[in-house]
Amino acid sequence: MIARTPEPPYFVAIFTSARTPGDDGYGAMSARMVELAREQPGYLGMESVRTAGGHGITVSYWQSLEAIGAWKRNAEHLEAQREGRERWYGAYAVRIAKVERQHFFGDA
Amino acid sequence: MIARTPEPPYFVAIFTSARTPGDDGYGAMSARMVELAREQPGYLGMESVRTAGGHGITVSYWQSLEAIGAWKRNAEHLEAQREGRERWYGAYAVRIAKVERQHFFGDA
Repeated sequence: MIARTPEPPYFVAIFTSARTPGDDGYGAMSARMVELAREQPGYLGMESVRTAGGHGITVSYWQSLEAIGAWKRNAEHLEAQREGRERWYGAYAVRIAKVERQHFFGDA
Repeated sequence: MIARTPEPPYFVAIFTSARTPGDDGYGAMSARMVELAREQPGYLGMESVRTAGGHGITVSYWQSLEAIGAWKRNAEHLEAQREGRERWYGAYAVRIAKVERQHFFGDA
């Protein structure tokens, strides 16, 4: 699950969230967004962890801020964001950052 | 579990890891490192998620690269890092990034 990102610099979107109870279509949407993100220009990789209790962190890596902006404005993704605020998430934070250094250990 | 970070810019250390099986002292070390990180100069907050299957992402926020460097070199933390490579982690990645934008939704 550890993404083999290229040498920095590159960019990251950190999405931290707390789910509402129940699935309510979340699983299907989530799988579709992973699939769709992988098809976007400038996509470099993704790491995602969610607990049974509904806390999640998804980190996606991108070549540029422009690539992150285009993904944010993707029509299908915009609809998922809208439904997310209505149904799936009680709270979330999105942070955009520039990766300056990285280090890998083991068979990552 | 969503950190109330201040307005950017600030810095983030993204730690993505795959645990080895069993606890083997990991839980106690992990709790101690959270406690210790909170005492460090420049610490702004932390978000951490780990699955039962052993995949984890911990994101810690800091005022400066210098604060992250000092935390990395903290003696007790260095020992935890050494033991981590020997016992607790099959693989991990550490990425250091500068947060440029953030957005919160809900009761985050």
